Amino acid sequence: MTFTAPVADQRFVLDHVVHLNELAATDRFAAATPDVIDAVLEGIAQFAEGEWAPLARTGDTVGAKWTPDGVVMPDGYPAAYRAYVEGGWGTIGVPEEFGGQGLPFVVQAAVLETLGTANMGFALAPILSVGAIEALQHHGTPEQQATYLPRLATGEWSGTMNLTEPQAGSDVGALRTTATPRGDGTFAIKGTKIYISFGDHDLTDNIVHLVLARTPGAPEGTKGISLFLVPKVRLDGTPNDVRVVSIEHKMGLHASPTCVLSFGDHDDCIGELIGPEFGGMRAMFTMMNNARLNVGLQGVQVAEGATQKAAAYARERIQGVRDGRPAAIVEHPDVRRMLLRMKAQTMAARALVYYACGMVDRAGLGDAKAKERLEIMTPLAKAHATDLGNEVASIGIQIHGGMGYVEETGAAQFFRDARITPIYEGTNGIQSADLVGRKLAMANGGTFADLIADMRGEARHPQLVRLIDACEAVGRRLQTVEADDRQAASYPFLTMLSVAACGWLMERQAGAAAGDAVKTTAAAFYLDQILPEAFGLEAAAHAPAAVLYALPADAF
Amino acid sequence: MTFTAPVADQRFVLDHVVHLNELAATDRFAAATPDVIDAVLEGIAQFAEGEWAPLARTGDTVGAKWTPDGVVMPDGYPAAYRAYVEGGWGTIGVPEEFGGQGLPFVVQAAVLETLGTANMGFALAPILSVGAIEALQHHGTPEQQATYLPRLATGEWSGTMNLTEPQAGSDVGALRTTATPRGDGTFAIKGTKIYISFGDHDLTDNIVHLVLARTPGAPEGTKGISLFLVPKVRLDGTPNDVRVVSIEHKMGLHASPTCVLSFGDHDDCIGELIGPEFGGMRAMFTMMNNARLNVGLQGVQVAEGATQKAAAYARERIQGVRDGRPAAIVEHPDVRRMLLRMKAQTMAARALVYYACGMVDRAGLGDAKAKERLEIMTPLAKAHATDLGNEVASIGIQIHGGMGYVEETGAAQFFRDARITPIYEGTNGIQSADLVGRKLAMANGGTFADLIADMRGEARHPQLVRLIDACEAVGRRLQTVEADDRQAASYPFLTMLSVAACGWLMERQAGAAAGDAVKTTAAAFYLDQILPEAFGLEAAAHAPAAVLYALPADAF
Repeated sequence: MTFTAPVADQRFVLDHVVHLNELAATDRFAAATPDVIDAVLEGIAQFAEGEWAPLARTGDTVGAKWTPDGVVMPDGYPAAYRAYVEGGWGTIGVPEEFGGQGLPFVVQAAVLETLGTANMGFALAPILSVGAIEALQHHGTPEQQATYLPRLATGEWSGTMNLTEPQAGSDVGALRTTATPRGDGTFAIKGTKIYISFGDHDLTDNIVHLVLARTPGAPEGTKGISLFLVPKVRLDGTPNDVRVVSIEHKMGLHASPTCVLSFGDHDDCIGELIGPEFGGMRAMFTMMNNARLNVGLQGVQVAEGATQKAAAYARERIQGVRDGRPAAIVEHPDVRRMLLRMKAQTMAARALVYYACGMVDRAGLGDAKAKERLEIMTPLAKAHATDLGNEVASIGIQIHGGMGYVEETGAAQFFRDARITPIYEGTNGIQSADLVGRKLAMANGGTFADLIADMRGEARHPQLVRLIDACEAVGRRLQTVEADDRQAASYPFLTMLSVAACGWLMERQAGAAAGDAVKTTAAAFYLDQILPEAFGLEAAAHAPAAVLYALPADAF
Repeated sequence: MTFTAPVADQRFVLDHVVHLNELAATDRFAAATPDVIDAVLEGIAQFAEGEWAPLARTGDTVGAKWTPDGVVMPDGYPAAYRAYVEGGWGTIGVPEEFGGQGLPFVVQAAVLETLGTANMGFALAPILSVGAIEALQHHGTPEQQATYLPRLATGEWSGTMNLTEPQAGSDVGALRTTATPRGDGTFAIKGTKIYISFGDHDLTDNIVHLVLARTPGAPEGTKGISLFLVPKVRLDGTPNDVRVVSIEHKMGLHASPTCVLSFGDHDDCIGELIGPEFGGMRAMFTMMNNARLNVGLQGVQVAEGATQKAAAYARERIQGVRDGRPAAIVEHPDVRRMLLRMKAQTMAARALVYYACGMVDRAGLGDAKAKERLEIMTPLAKAHATDLGNEVASIGIQIHGGMGYVEETGAAQFFRDARITPIYEGTNGIQSADLVGRKLAMANGGTFADLIADMRGEARHPQLVRLIDACEAVGRRLQTVEADDRQAASYPFLTMLSVAACGWLMERQAGAAAGDAVKTTAAAFYLDQILPEAFGLEAAAHAPAAVLYALPADAF
């Protein structure tokens, strides 16, 4: 697959949406000078285009394979992963004291975007490691940090997140994996985890599993959960008692082995506690919130890749006539409409996710308002950007016509790969519940009110202003109603608010892009034609839950 | 897969949307008594549930295979096909004089719906045969009809439609396959056709290919196209010179072999003309218009199957708590919202497609208004029902969570299978172009005005009334603007008008279903919450093409 990393677009969003210069003006991020950022964006572009993109197709067709000795990645993957480690790409966002380059999280996001557009399944390996790094960085002891962080930062070792069990998916509190003190400060871990991305592979010598489990006598539900670090290989070089039972046969993302892991089959799985006992949910949210942004980023990846592929096809494919001559399909109005929509949605998704990622950095600098903004933007960035990724990938197939349905073209791979993103790291329904529950209530409603006020302060386009008003009205209403009514309206409201946020950031980009016809055109198209679709959701966002319960469960 | 054919729903739509009793009151369809219809719907339900549904998964996992001796279907398919032939299911809609049962097209559609929900890929074989039967019935000579129709009707032989060539997809007029008179009234066919569904298989002894080709000196474009009948095996038992070069590796619909066919490699491919020379496009539209409705019907199939599967999962899957107790996910508001949406969209899609199919029968009885109605409803039924099929299949995955992404569950198969339906038989973009071009202009705008008037005459829900007004305004504007502006607005307009039509037919169903809580609830949800989404498309439906051409082609 030919793929050109959108370096200029990334740079533009970092400058004009994230205002990276403000971050670079701080001591913490002094390294983020314009020259360094350019070098990073261009360097990862060259690396991903040259080393990772060419493997995307075999990642899909061959995929990761389970063997009795562990999971084997397709040919070329171990070498391409080593090149990633040697290039230092894993260290971008890790603080210098832990062996990293100390660049902002949002710059790391740009790096992950490029890797993921080149090869989305493969890029899950670094993404999962980022989650493990975050958890250790915030909750590990200095010794744990010294032992594990440098090697996770380089990517020499990889990390995983072990939450889900067969009976505990969205309901994490239902998990049953146990952690029993062994008397020496360590714990014996026992249980089965499912859907563990890169739970096993042959890319690294060791894998650091972060595992949620219950200690003896722990309270039920999420309150009784603790986080454990369980290495695949112990520090003394002996194998830990962790077995990869199988990998899932998935619709897409075949380069990413989705593992069933069994811990302690032989009662010899040793783990160590990360953070305090019963501090598992808090530590998990550290991993998970940023992982949610990185999944939102996968929506951007798919959208960018699908758009590039469809545009290239539309310029080449001759079909029909315009002005009396055979014309490439890009010349036909409805194809243009689809392409401009893809372009605008990609631009919107990138702005939304980068904006939220920038708030991770601002929050890390102690900005309390940024912390709140991050909290309310996270469900929007995760859910809406992944919805957009799916929409754009589907349009990409449509532009290819019959060729889009034939696997060799590659358009279908984006579509299949993308479909997991609205599901994992908290389904988009869970994101919506989080938005209307915890996030609308935050700071007594102040977090939501601040977002509305900021958007309103900048907004000029009359439809955008109207949409912000509509969102405020729905949000205020949802702050007062019963839980069921709130939940019933949650998804339509999440979409409305996300579109408002995208419209706001699109207008901000248009303002900064005077003279850049692509950006001003895409922004105008977004504001004039895409944004109004959100008004179509108002009725559902104001509807109570009653109609949903008018029928018994077996009527469906 | 467990699947229960929605017999009562089908019957309800036949009675209250199609008004089948009016058809049964005619001489032509006197056979369509209530008892016969019940027997047909229940019979095909039992057959499809028992014989075809169990093969759906191997159709996907094993799929049709190319061999040097032709395409081989998965185990069990030939026997299941023979059972279909022996059950007489192919003859339902074929006139009695050609060996059929003479039942209405819309009853045949119900039969195909059930077969397709059970096994969508497999059901393409009968669907393609229907197209061939229609073409011969309307354009064949009595001798051709006597020779081919009875065996096509029973399904003893199958039929194909050969339109597309590598350079001629949506632009059919660009085709290059040649037909040269052999001096004995027959023609030598030479050329390559692609995307030929069931172009080869081992289900029948013979395959009747209907092939578009050009005679020597034919005018360019669609005016110079003629239709030819090319049997795989000649009537004297010798093989014709037709070779299956390969089959496509597709994202879904693996039970349906999508063939590249080469005609006349050895200059020994003999075909006969169907209809007059240069009458190919007209004959093709006979095949294609009804095939379009049958593809719309595939949207219904996918929607029905995905809804049943998701509802069953949602009732079983325990996750989270409600009223202090572990709850099945069907109890959670956002899952209910998704299920009710699936239910309502399925009901809407079925009504839309069946309504259009009923117009085939009315038009066949000489009702000129019904002919016009059929013409304007065909693009809506094809495009919107397939869009709905895709939407519902995607929601089906979402309800399954991680399990939806794992192939063994079967939710993903609906999603993959469905994705071709907005593409083949004229992409949904082509349907939109047809709507705003030929169909809006029909009868000097009268065809459109009649539809609006009929909907308005019945509509009660204020939002539905408002949407009908909005559609009328857009449609009237599009009747007056330049071609590019018409095309730019075509897809949003098609969706708006389709939603209005669905709303109209949902309200009609609710009126007839007093006391049926499922139907009245689904209809209310549709009218109150889904229908208003169409207002979100008004801006795009009124936007001119200029913004689409603000950028050069290489800016995308």
